[in-house]
Amino acid sequence: MDKRFMEMACEEAYKGIKDGDGGPFGAVIVLNGKVIGSGHNTVIKDKDPTMHGEIAAIRNACKNIKSFSLEGAEIYTTAEPCPMCLGAILWADISRVYYGCNRHDTESIGFRDNAFYNIIGNDQTICQEFDREKCLELFNQYMKNKDRKSY
Amino acid sequence: MDKRFMEMACEEAYKGIKDGDGGPFGAVIVLNGKVIGSGHNTVIKDKDPTMHGEIAAIRNACKNIKSFSLEGAEIYTTAEPCPMCLGAILWADISRVYYGCNRHDTESIGFRDNAFYNIIGNDQTICQEFDREKCLELFNQYMKNKDRKSY
Repeated sequence: MDKRFMEMACEEAYKGIKDGDGGPFGAVIVLNGKVIGSGHNTVIKDKDPTMHGEIAAIRNACKNIKSFSLEGAEIYTTAEPCPMCLGAILWADISRVYYGCNRHDTESIGFRDNAFYNIIGNDQTICQEFDREKCLELFNQYMKNKDRKSY
Repeated sequence: MDKRFMEMACEEAYKGIKDGDGGPFGAVIVLNGKVIGSGHNTVIKDKDPTMHGEIAAIRNACKNIKSFSLEGAEIYTTAEPCPMCLGAILWADISRVYYGCNRHDTESIGFRDNAFYNIIGNDQTICQEFDREKCLELFNQYMKNKDRKSY
């Protein structure tokens, strides 16, 4: 836990809000005490709802170390990750998250993270199973490839 | 609900597994009966853990319609969205998800979606609040900008 890394995450976020890129969210990824990636929210600038600070930092770090796994890394982020970003953090094998503001702070400045946690933790009423048989055939085809890589 | 769109999502996924791009996951986004975006998993190819089929399709659709909101759209996806992708779907304002295989099917072919749902729905032991005061200053700065756009 190192305050310098949270300062860097804040600097990223300040850069983003100054330029109107998106919300006040920046992130820095640290492996063995060294920054391997950083990023800030660019949802507005890129017209891309997936470009949160953590996603930007993960993509940057993966590019820098040429791997889809950031095993052993930590992420410093200016706010508690939303479900999308926490999911991305888990897929990236990041083992530790330090966040500044929590989901209620984020709600109080107009963002939906907390509402989305409630949807994802409860009935996912927007989702419906459909045509499973066809997709199981696809899964079976995938399993026939013995050289497939896990992630 | 239209089987042709699930067929297109499957075609996307078959293309991806044939080329070794990633897992058997494809998605198609439909607005007013028309496909506005599509994509498949490229985690292996792009060395990017965030490039799931749904994320690829959302990014493609947003680029095509030049908006970070896909309000009113539906997504057809070969498997139940993981928490990352369901989060992205919510941020993109997609109101309906049709998925083929469910999270248990996906677990049975070696993916961690179900495990991640358990983490996100319960104690998020990998997350820890840290240096909140500094980040609240950042949030306050953001709120001073009266021209900020919501998303």
